[in-house]
Amino acid sequence: VSEATWASVPDGSPFGPAVLPYGCFSLDRQPRRVGVRIGDHVLDLAGLARDGLLGVFPAAQAAFAAPGLDVLMASGPDAWRATRERVAALLADGRERARVEPHLHPLGDAELHLPFAVADYADFYASLHHATNLGRLLRPGEEPLPPNWRHLPVGYHGRAGTVVVSGTEIVRPRGQYLPAGARAPEYGPSRRLDVELELGFVIGVPSRLGTPVAVADALEHVFGVVLLNDWSARDLQAWEYRPLGPFLGKSFATSIAAWVTPLAALERLRVPAPAQEPAPLGYLREDPWALDVDLEVELNGDVVARTSARNLYWSPAQMIAHLTANGASLRTGDLLGSGTISGPERGERGSLVELSWGGEEPISLPGGQTRAFLEDGDAVVLRGTALAEVAGRVVPAA
Amino acid sequence: VSEATWASVPDGSPFGPAVLPYGCFSLDRQPRRVGVRIGDHVLDLAGLARDGLLGVFPAAQAAFAAPGLDVLMASGPDAWRATRERVAALLADGRERARVEPHLHPLGDAELHLPFAVADYADFYASLHHATNLGRLLRPGEEPLPPNWRHLPVGYHGRAGTVVVSGTEIVRPRGQYLPAGARAPEYGPSRRLDVELELGFVIGVPSRLGTPVAVADALEHVFGVVLLNDWSARDLQAWEYRPLGPFLGKSFATSIAAWVTPLAALERLRVPAPAQEPAPLGYLREDPWALDVDLEVELNGDVVARTSARNLYWSPAQMIAHLTANGASLRTGDLLGSGTISGPERGERGSLVELSWGGEEPISLPGGQTRAFLEDGDAVVLRGTALAEVAGRVVPAA
Repeated sequence: VSEATWASVPDGSPFGPAVLPYGCFSLDRQPRRVGVRIGDHVLDLAGLARDGLLGVFPAAQAAFAAPGLDVLMASGPDAWRATRERVAALLADGRERARVEPHLHPLGDAELHLPFAVADYADFYASLHHATNLGRLLRPGEEPLPPNWRHLPVGYHGRAGTVVVSGTEIVRPRGQYLPAGARAPEYGPSRRLDVELELGFVIGVPSRLGTPVAVADALEHVFGVVLLNDWSARDLQAWEYRPLGPFLGKSFATSIAAWVTPLAALERLRVPAPAQEPAPLGYLREDPWALDVDLEVELNGDVVARTSARNLYWSPAQMIAHLTANGASLRTGDLLGSGTISGPERGERGSLVELSWGGEEPISLPGGQTRAFLEDGDAVVLRGTALAEVAGRVVPAA
Repeated sequence: VSEATWASVPDGSPFGPAVLPYGCFSLDRQPRRVGVRIGDHVLDLAGLARDGLLGVFPAAQAAFAAPGLDVLMASGPDAWRATRERVAALLADGRERARVEPHLHPLGDAELHLPFAVADYADFYASLHHATNLGRLLRPGEEPLPPNWRHLPVGYHGRAGTVVVSGTEIVRPRGQYLPAGARAPEYGPSRRLDVELELGFVIGVPSRLGTPVAVADALEHVFGVVLLNDWSARDLQAWEYRPLGPFLGKSFATSIAAWVTPLAALERLRVPAPAQEPAPLGYLREDPWALDVDLEVELNGDVVARTSARNLYWSPAQMIAHLTANGASLRTGDLLGSGTISGPERGERGSLVELSWGGEEPISLPGGQTRAFLEDGDAVVLRGTALAEVAGRVVPAA
């Protein structure tokens, strides 16, 4: 889409007319509706459609007046493409300015909501360096990668009902943990609260129960991408996770950005990736690729980790092919987390448990403080190329 | 509620006027609506409400005309009690017969649908004998129960989008498994397809994010109970489950009954249970109890296992208190599976992997056949006191 626009986009803003992420907003307690972010403004698509400027697919008016992206997401790639091209054209063509500008609102006037209803939330473990680090920390002396790891994108289901929008305060979870050296667990506020830097892939087009989605067709189902912070209580998780995996150590909250970046806006960041060894089974095979999305973790205003989504071993197409290989269906609103993204270097680790090596080596912050895990009041912001930030602050346990 | 009724209830039917389970049905492709099962008939609550016979709470007419139980479920215990008492009274009072009978339809005329929209599906592991059996089978030579098992109700999240109504055909899943002695996995139809006999607890009243539900208040959130078959591909599960737990070995389908039995209808089956050892932490502590629901697994017309829900070590109140202990919220439509229910004796095991001891000791069927795991064409029906059956037939992999 065009890079030109008559709209105001501040220097350095990632939200120029080539990105155009979608969100759900409201003004002055009016009903929620669909908008697009341009610079530091939100463009009201429901208003444009009502004025006859956005009749790009049959259900368009209802889709943009809906209290979330769900109808747009279900409408499929042709509708997504038509909307994106038409919005870019309206923002590029100065002759439309007088009709469009009344629908532009300063971001500060808008309340932002969870952009879509999360159907199922599945979280993967797709970064080789993260999985290796966690294996070393949790199972010292053993081979860090489980035997299945290079054969399939390991994953599990998380709690869809506790996915929250960026800015939501995170109440420190209570739960059971086994104190070092103890034989019986205690119950109390988590002492090892952590972040996980992830991408979230948002499913638009559903699939049929009983019919796997081929890896070559998988991206046709993907509406867009969000940054995702999979908050984790490492002490709860360590005690509970055998044999059925993470549960309360993760389920208290998962934050996603308020804006969903269309997959089309990330196409230019698609890069070839190294060959997978061993070659995956046929249903997972494709030309290796990744998204060269630069990522960072900011803690109380300081960047504590920088990495790239190039560090994902498994692609989102492979995650979808695997998720549906057994006949499981996709629904509009399914959210697929990549798992924590870490690179090979120390400063490229996407979680505190890796950065502080299990809490043994706390990181130093510029103000002279140190952190092994999150303290009450800590503010975390995840950022990524062409993606909206996901922010959250820790508040004390209730 | 009254045991008397003018309606026809066949001898031996479990669906007398003391049970009155709720479901979602349609007639002749008309819209879905809410009904109650009495004997072999469905009573159309939407029709009763339209005729002014069921104005038992403010949103009643909309709740019963909805395409599922969701609005009724969210309306809370007072609305549930009022509905149940009024329906029982209408069915008991012969003077109402002429006005009510036009809303009774033979079950054979009705199409039954998934009774409610499943929000999150969490599955527990709450039967001591099942967890012990699985530990012995999967980790021979080790202590069968993981160290956390007697301290908390172990659980994980399943896939809500593949919960299907009784009667839905189950397509044998494909997936990765590691053949015995092999070093690399293969991909193909599961060879170890299994059933899991479970109760499902259905959440009606939501809770607030960040605020745990006390064990004493937990049952106020429970609308009712269903039988649940957590179909499982043991070969897929064994290969994938470390370290994040079950995923594709479970996510292809979970069947629930078409009728949700109100918790109130099971009150008479509530019995004291043995003390838990060790005593659980405070947030899980209550007077031990269980539901004396007799259960059976029928395979191709023969009962292959009989047990009771008394064999659940953790109560549904404890499951809810634990699930929310970290601040996670409940939503209307959350489904909590108990995990497979097994008793101490061989004939009381609620899964084939236990009945056939990992496939080593196939069970004999009356017709002379044997089964270690399910074959294509096999039909499984789960039954339980005051609960509607959940049935499913295996069809070949696509």
